[in-house]
Amino acid sequence: MTQQPKVTKREPLDPAEAKWTRLVKLNWTDQTGKSRVWEAAERSTRGEGGIDAVAILAIVPVNNEKHVLCQKQFRPPVGKYCVEIPAGLIDGRETPEEAAVRELREETGYVGTVQRSSVVMVNDPGLTNANLKVVVMNVDMDLPANQHPVQQLDEGEFITNFTLPLRTLAEELERLEREGFVIDVRLAVLAMGLKMSV
Amino acid sequence: MTQQPKVTKREPLDPAEAKWTRLVKLNWTDQTGKSRVWEAAERSTRGEGGIDAVAILAIVPVNNEKHVLCQKQFRPPVGKYCVEIPAGLIDGRETPEEAAVRELREETGYVGTVQRSSVVMVNDPGLTNANLKVVVMNVDMDLPANQHPVQQLDEGEFITNFTLPLRTLAEELERLEREGFVIDVRLAVLAMGLKMSV
Repeated sequence: MTQQPKVTKREPLDPAEAKWTRLVKLNWTDQTGKSRVWEAAERSTRGEGGIDAVAILAIVPVNNEKHVLCQKQFRPPVGKYCVEIPAGLIDGRETPEEAAVRELREETGYVGTVQRSSVVMVNDPGLTNANLKVVVMNVDMDLPANQHPVQQLDEGEFITNFTLPLRTLAEELERLEREGFVIDVRLAVLAMGLKMSV
Repeated sequence: MTQQPKVTKREPLDPAEAKWTRLVKLNWTDQTGKSRVWEAAERSTRGEGGIDAVAILAIVPVNNEKHVLCQKQFRPPVGKYCVEIPAGLIDGRETPEEAAVRELREETGYVGTVQRSSVVMVNDPGLTNANLKVVVMNVDMDLPANQHPVQQLDEGEFITNFTLPLRTLAEELERLEREGFVIDVRLAVLAMGLKMSV
């Protein structure tokens, strides 16, 4: 029994009540020595590693064609279902790579191994310090552990996994947007890069 | 006479004082009908078009090799110089494409024409509704108007434009990270897509 999730009420958040986010007022000195002010939003969950989150880029074969592992998840800040690659916040003293292995297992049920990690990426640096690493992972679909993947979601998490072919990723994302989904920047820009020749 | 910009003070931002950002408390109903709460950060500048910003992807030839037009800009939320593609907020009733033409001219001095626009991308959908379109633009370097580009920056904007070769974009971004720059998600993921075969 599932129903369409929806945002039912929006109201200003009292900073004293905020557990996950905060607004900060930054005083900064510009290149000419002038003092200026900037407003920023931050996650209040960042650990000592200085990186908020990881996203997992896993390319898997489906019918002998390369696909990217994707998810559909209702995102309250956006008020819609988003199409994303698997991602999650880094816990405590985890490395990004440890978080990637854990998040992949929890969100998809798949056991994967780390191939490489990206540079640290900022998501919207005029608004927030929010950042992440993309961890490229190998998911061996022939492993017994990956034959019948079982999600281990946190209470309140609802994630549907699926795959999209790399060859037509841009067109598939355009179709999903027309169907009402919102596309995460990582998938959308990956599709642009795949279409571009050097 | 320029000096190194820096953040000199960080303090909680009083919502009554915030002009550009806000925190919101979202009540939402999940797939099982259960009521839940989510915290989100938003820009308070979004116009009626529903899209916050545009980023401009311009590929230009340098010594007969394809380069991407990039910028270095100190970003107070991050406290460091970021390496990004040109971007800016959409004003009032502008379309994303109009904003892209304007921002390219202001931030780089170049006159460009729109080739195509991406899907709407969300930058960090667990944290914020912040979104943008990437507009792919053509910048004809042979145009007289593009021979001696002059920036038209807003007061307080300090942007340095440069180019990076597509062929070695990933390695160049890793070098810039080692040098202390922070890389925007769009450039970083573009580099990953360029390296990947379908």
